[in-house]
Amino acid sequence: MSNVTEVDLPPNLSCLKNIDTLLRCPICFDFVNIAMMTRCSHNFCSLCIRKFLSYKLQCPVCNLAMTEQDLRNNRILDDLVQSFQIARQKLCQANFDSPPISPKT
Amino acid sequence: MSNVTEVDLPPNLSCLKNIDTLLRCPICFDFVNIAMMTRCSHNFCSLCIRKFLSYKLQCPVCNLAMTEQDLRNNRILDDLVQSFQIARQKLCQANFDSPPISPKT
Ligand SMILES: [Zn+2]
Ligand SMILES: [Zn+2]
Ligand SMILES: [Zn+2]
Ligand SMILES: [Zn+2]
Repeated sequence: MSNVTEVDLPPNLSCLKNIDTLLRCPICFDFVNIAMMTRCSHNFCSLCIRKFLSYKLQCPVCNLAMTEQDLRNNRILDDLVQSFQIARQKLCQANFDSPPISPKT
Repeated sequence: MSNVTEVDLPPNLSCLKNIDTLLRCPICFDFVNIAMMTRCSHNFCSLCIRKFLSYKLQCPVCNLAMTEQDLRNNRILDDLVQSFQIARQKLCQANFDSPPISPKT
């Protein structure tokens, strides 16, 4: 949460946008931090969903009734966030090192 | 399962290798198909894990005892596989269209 170094994707890396969006928490919009999955297959930061459930016992995305006991760690999402951030940084850097010769418009 | 168009990543896209690996099923090594997550947070194709559990009631990765009832759909993985395959194809194509001028060795 709130530790994201936000980098806009250059146009030729816009194909990474969907992956970026999928890896973000629907509550805080940062990359998901200690991902927890609900029974309804929705994912949130551990802290974000626990705060939400202290007010309302339902999924913030689809409104299905739930409790904290229904949450399950989704560790592969944490690993994917880490790998994605590294890959994005390297691709942006490579992009900066060798700007396109013939941009397609 | 078994419908993967295997593409080797060019050297300047090797930073995507970790993401590629994370999105594959530890049983069939293809991109995960209808991802199911265990209580121990391991992910498999629906068909692969159900076949495995018909022989042995434990997680194929960490050996934790489990049954089919412990499985939960991990839909975001299916979405990530789809987005990743599209992104990888576009990046490989862009790479082919404009080969690097000064490769770093
Ligand atoms: Zn969050
Ligand atoms: Zn939900
Ligand atoms: Zn499989
Ligand atoms: Zn396991």
